[in-house]
Amino acid sequence: MGTVEDWVSAPARVAEPGEGVSVDELRLAARNHGLPLEALRYDVTPAGLHYLLTHYDIPALDPAGWRLTVSGAVARPLSLSLDDLRARPRVTHRVTLECAGNGRARLSPRPVSQPWLDEAVGTAEWSGTPLAAVLAEAGVAPSAVDVAFTGADRGLERGVEQTYQRGLPLAEALRDDVLLADEMNGGPLPPQHGAPVRLIVPGWYGMAHVKWLVGVDVLESAFDGFQNVTAYRVKQSADDPGEPVTRILPRALIQPPGVPDFQSRVRVLDSGVVELTGRAWSGWAPVESVEVSTDDGGTWRPAELGPQPAPYAWRSWRFEWTAHPGRHELRARARDAAGHEQPVDQAWNRQGVANNHAQQLTVVVR
Amino acid sequence: MGTVEDWVSAPARVAEPGEGVSVDELRLAARNHGLPLEALRYDVTPAGLHYLLTHYDIPALDPAGWRLTVSGAVARPLSLSLDDLRARPRVTHRVTLECAGNGRARLSPRPVSQPWLDEAVGTAEWSGTPLAAVLAEAGVAPSAVDVAFTGADRGLERGVEQTYQRGLPLAEALRDDVLLADEMNGGPLPPQHGAPVRLIVPGWYGMAHVKWLVGVDVLESAFDGFQNVTAYRVKQSADDPGEPVTRILPRALIQPPGVPDFQSRVRVLDSGVVELTGRAWSGWAPVESVEVSTDDGGTWRPAELGPQPAPYAWRSWRFEWTAHPGRHELRARARDAAGHEQPVDQAWNRQGVANNHAQQLTVVVR
Repeated sequence: MGTVEDWVSAPARVAEPGEGVSVDELRLAARNHGLPLEALRYDVTPAGLHYLLTHYDIPALDPAGWRLTVSGAVARPLSLSLDDLRARPRVTHRVTLECAGNGRARLSPRPVSQPWLDEAVGTAEWSGTPLAAVLAEAGVAPSAVDVAFTGADRGLERGVEQTYQRGLPLAEALRDDVLLADEMNGGPLPPQHGAPVRLIVPGWYGMAHVKWLVGVDVLESAFDGFQNVTAYRVKQSADDPGEPVTRILPRALIQPPGVPDFQSRVRVLDSGVVELTGRAWSGWAPVESVEVSTDDGGTWRPAELGPQPAPYAWRSWRFEWTAHPGRHELRARARDAAGHEQPVDQAWNRQGVANNHAQQLTVVVR
Repeated sequence: MGTVEDWVSAPARVAEPGEGVSVDELRLAARNHGLPLEALRYDVTPAGLHYLLTHYDIPALDPAGWRLTVSGAVARPLSLSLDDLRARPRVTHRVTLECAGNGRARLSPRPVSQPWLDEAVGTAEWSGTPLAAVLAEAGVAPSAVDVAFTGADRGLERGVEQTYQRGLPLAEALRDDVLLADEMNGGPLPPQHGAPVRLIVPGWYGMAHVKWLVGVDVLESAFDGFQNVTAYRVKQSADDPGEPVTRILPRALIQPPGVPDFQSRVRVLDSGVVELTGRAWSGWAPVESVEVSTDDGGTWRPAELGPQPAPYAWRSWRFEWTAHPGRHELRARARDAAGHEQPVDQAWNRQGVANNHAQQLTVVVR
């Protein structure tokens, strides 16, 4: 036995074949939650239905005492109050956020961590002030390369005690749609979504959108913190350094038709013409096509796409299906304008991140 | 193989010894969610942190077209619009709701269903109009015994297709604190909490607080629907008719001290004097005492209780602990004024309902 940190933090591992979900994973599943798939009906996800993943605890921050520190390789370090931020120009962006671990629990073998199936997603209207102008006011040094964002949430992970911190390449941080957001869906940011202020980086997986933001640190070398260098890596083995997780790969989800069974969530519907609907998104480029299979990926037909409401918000789709009695496996897959297409089979990786293989939805037609 | 209903609905069962949580249970855990335990800090649970259990799908109801039908053994059947309800006298009650299945996944053997650990609870301010006055206006027949409440949510459960429906004894339905609620925490009822109108029955487990309410049916015989006669029974075997689940048994929860490990949720804190805090509630009577054990139930000492803010809302408690280095199992138990006390060991039942054995929280002190 080593330190306290080793004692409470098990090493990363992959489940044995057939191993069920453990109580540890269940504890995560009970506190974090996905989007109930019927909530795909909403263009903008109502508060409380948007997916939620908290690494440590939701901190209790006093908005009156909160300050955002802008430091590091800048000409004029800043310390901003909430009133300071709110006095700045305001914009609203509709953005789809997805957890990088979405789909993890469907992988075989299963990486042991937050056990998401398909539902770690949501779309909200985020309001706040552009980060780029705050950085301009601070005066970013020409030698800067990364920006580190620090949250107020603290805990241990794989033996490393830390305050949640993520680095972002400077060019991404300077995009004009990256926000210091203090409102969600036109109301105050809820505690669990990062109150009083969080970062929004449209197009990137959730880990980049640092909640409970307290620090913005401009760096002259690449950020080497845990959440960039150890976690959120697409890697094949424990000693593979892997590739960093960045933008959201395309995904389509089907709004489940018919009615569910409580326990299995299998859907039951009547035969006849069924309008299947759903959402599709990508953080790389607009979604260009959605295809639907009603025979578990044997054949695919194109769905009709709704408008793209914002560059990084999901778009709706619809597909008319003549449902015959029997059991069917429905699947949907999206392709974006940058050429990324959802795989039908898993592209396994050890952390189960950035995995976008096509949803499988069982329906029974009577 | 029998009917479609049999095909999609597995019979109720208990997990094998050592059997992990299945994908079916995980699908429930990913869409339903508990209160992240650090949110015990709030007197009133912010929206989105309150526990949530949806039997089937969250329905999409149009408030403009919504009607509440009051029918059955009444002199004057009613059909009320949302405006009709809102024009009636309004009251607000602070109420702690808990799922009857809370604690289920900690039982051994584990009943296979929504796998709650300790966190299926929340406290909200519910506003609406008293049901009793609506029933008085309809004129309840002297022969009435039960009232059946029908939601708009539909699905299958254990082979039975149904619209969610629960019966309540007439005497309970006529209590002056039973509400037709259309607001939560001073805002509109969110879709997932029953919009536009839900029932609130202070003191009872969650299954009684019918969401998406559309029908109130006064009955001259005991309600014999699935959710009263088959589900929500304290029973020891498949053929035991069991006893109905009614009011919430007392429970105390500890707000986890220190910081968590991401994966295990074990808490790490520094040695010294630690103020432990938490909440305790009962649906039978006010909480009269909370005791804390820092040695896994070996010895117990009383906590100091905060005020009881409302008859059926949780009350806070605090306990000063001198924490010495090492690993400790913290437990808390509540007793109410009606003499119910939380057991330290499980009181197993086949559905894993109304089970309130004391929380166990692992902390490592350094």
